Amino acid sequence: MATLHGIGIPSRMLIDGLPGDQLSVLDRAVQYGDGLFETIRLAAGYPCQWQRHMDRLILGAERLGIEMPDTALLAAEAAEVTWGQHDGILKLILSRGEGGRGYAPPSPAITRRMLLTYPLAANHGQQWRDGVTVRYCQTPVSINPVLAGIKHLNRLDSVLARAEWHDPAIAEGLMFAATGELVGGTMTNVFVWDGRCLLTPPLDRGGIAGTVRGLTLELAARLGIDCLVTRLDRAALDQARGLFLTNSIIGVWPVRELSGRRFDLTHLPWTLLDRLYSAACTAG
Amino acid sequence: MATLHGIGIPSRMLIDGLPGDQLSVLDRAVQYGDGLFETIRLAAGYPCQWQRHMDRLILGAERLGIEMPDTALLAAEAAEVTWGQHDGILKLILSRGEGGRGYAPPSPAITRRMLLTYPLAANHGQQWRDGVTVRYCQTPVSINPVLAGIKHLNRLDSVLARAEWHDPAIAEGLMFAATGELVGGTMTNVFVWDGRCLLTPPLDRGGIAGTVRGLTLELAARLGIDCLVTRLDRAALDQARGLFLTNSIIGVWPVRELSGRRFDLTHLPWTLLDRLYSAACTAG
Repeated sequence: MATLHGIGIPSRMLIDGLPGDQLSVLDRAVQYGDGLFETIRLAAGYPCQWQRHMDRLILGAERLGIEMPDTALLAAEAAEVTWGQHDGILKLILSRGEGGRGYAPPSPAITRRMLLTYPLAANHGQQWRDGVTVRYCQTPVSINPVLAGIKHLNRLDSVLARAEWHDPAIAEGLMFAATGELVGGTMTNVFVWDGRCLLTPPLDRGGIAGTVRGLTLELAARLGIDCLVTRLDRAALDQARGLFLTNSIIGVWPVRELSGRRFDLTHLPWTLLDRLYSAACTAG
Repeated sequence: MATLHGIGIPSRMLIDGLPGDQLSVLDRAVQYGDGLFETIRLAAGYPCQWQRHMDRLILGAERLGIEMPDTALLAAEAAEVTWGQHDGILKLILSRGEGGRGYAPPSPAITRRMLLTYPLAANHGQQWRDGVTVRYCQTPVSINPVLAGIKHLNRLDSVLARAEWHDPAIAEGLMFAATGELVGGTMTNVFVWDGRCLLTPPLDRGGIAGTVRGLTLELAARLGIDCLVTRLDRAALDQARGLFLTNSIIGVWPVRELSGRRFDLTHLPWTLLDRLYSAACTAG
């Protein structure tokens, strides 16, 4: 652990129900990125939006043909690994388990469960209040309709996009398909506000269907705010009156500046954003 | 190891120069598939086409921004882990090493080296003599121009394609982009023979630039056989007089049957194939 750098060091780790941080090099997560993950906000000692995370994990496991562990077992392990932690982050990784050489999934395969907790970043919450600065990324999103939407472990496109900048003042980068259509941020979903209506890209070719994205679509409908899932390009972003980003750890980030263009944050639909922020960080 | 299934169990493993098979769950290969690999044929106690494998690894490391270890160190570790093994397979995995939470590469990052050896499959060589049966896969290849060609660890497209069949009589499946163009097999590169000329797909959007693919292009040029790198679709495959597949472990597989259509193997350019097979399995 002495050589570890980055924005967070895990507080506690549980692999297949046992404390520890080691796994076999033969695990298919190592060999092929053959697995799934969820990154879950902890608030008041509970995982927020647990059911949405489990729903996405179940969908991902179906798509990859990985046997899904009992969600009650995952909940029990989540309770154990987060015990005594009030706020923070729970990362849950499922892999197809260990296998021999070659792409063919082992049969039977024994799904491996890895749970890690992290503290929240020191400046957590500040960007919700102040808004964030965002850039455009050059790295294109990987396009594969079969893998689109699920939170699998093949994340080199986001890694390379996130490596494009080092300026800590820039919070996020927007990613496009090589064809020019917006897909999302490196770690967020994107909503454009045109003054009357929300617009967000479909995730049928690439990107991740965020839990807070789902929540946004539901809350908008409940508040009578139209939300159109539609293909968007740079021109659509240039015409936006406002923009916000969602993910399960941050909840919502209003965008203050995109690639040099400043936005008036008061134009955003704050009734929705306020509800979204508290809903995203509520246990249940 | 008792629960391990699949086509091969490693004979020996070396992680960062030390015997062992465990690594941290915080390794970015586990978290994001953030790394590269090479699968190298051992013959007469030596790794075949070592320089081609190193060249591809160097290119991949540049593309991902991963610090490349000294190839002399990798050669020394390869010699250590394969010591006393006459024939077999050496798998070499490089990851970006351990990191904190989030896609941003850790700085500094300490590249992790993982070397594993495997025995050859029991029926190795038989398919070179008899030819193989091949099918079409439904799973599309992941498309990303920035990741195309290199042998990175984001391999879920090949995993899902390989999971489409269980019939051991089928040796390989051909994969296409969602747009319909042929990219390659799940673990091979594809060459079409039209009777006068070789055709093989470009790898500018997806797929892996195989070491034996490179060797094929060079040997064909030396033998005066035209080889066209060009986009191919199902129709082009339907018009093929013959077909062969290449990879670093098998060398060459002539295709006897593709999705029910049988080929006369005598139509293939055997001068090339014979040289290719021995060159692919030669130390150097």
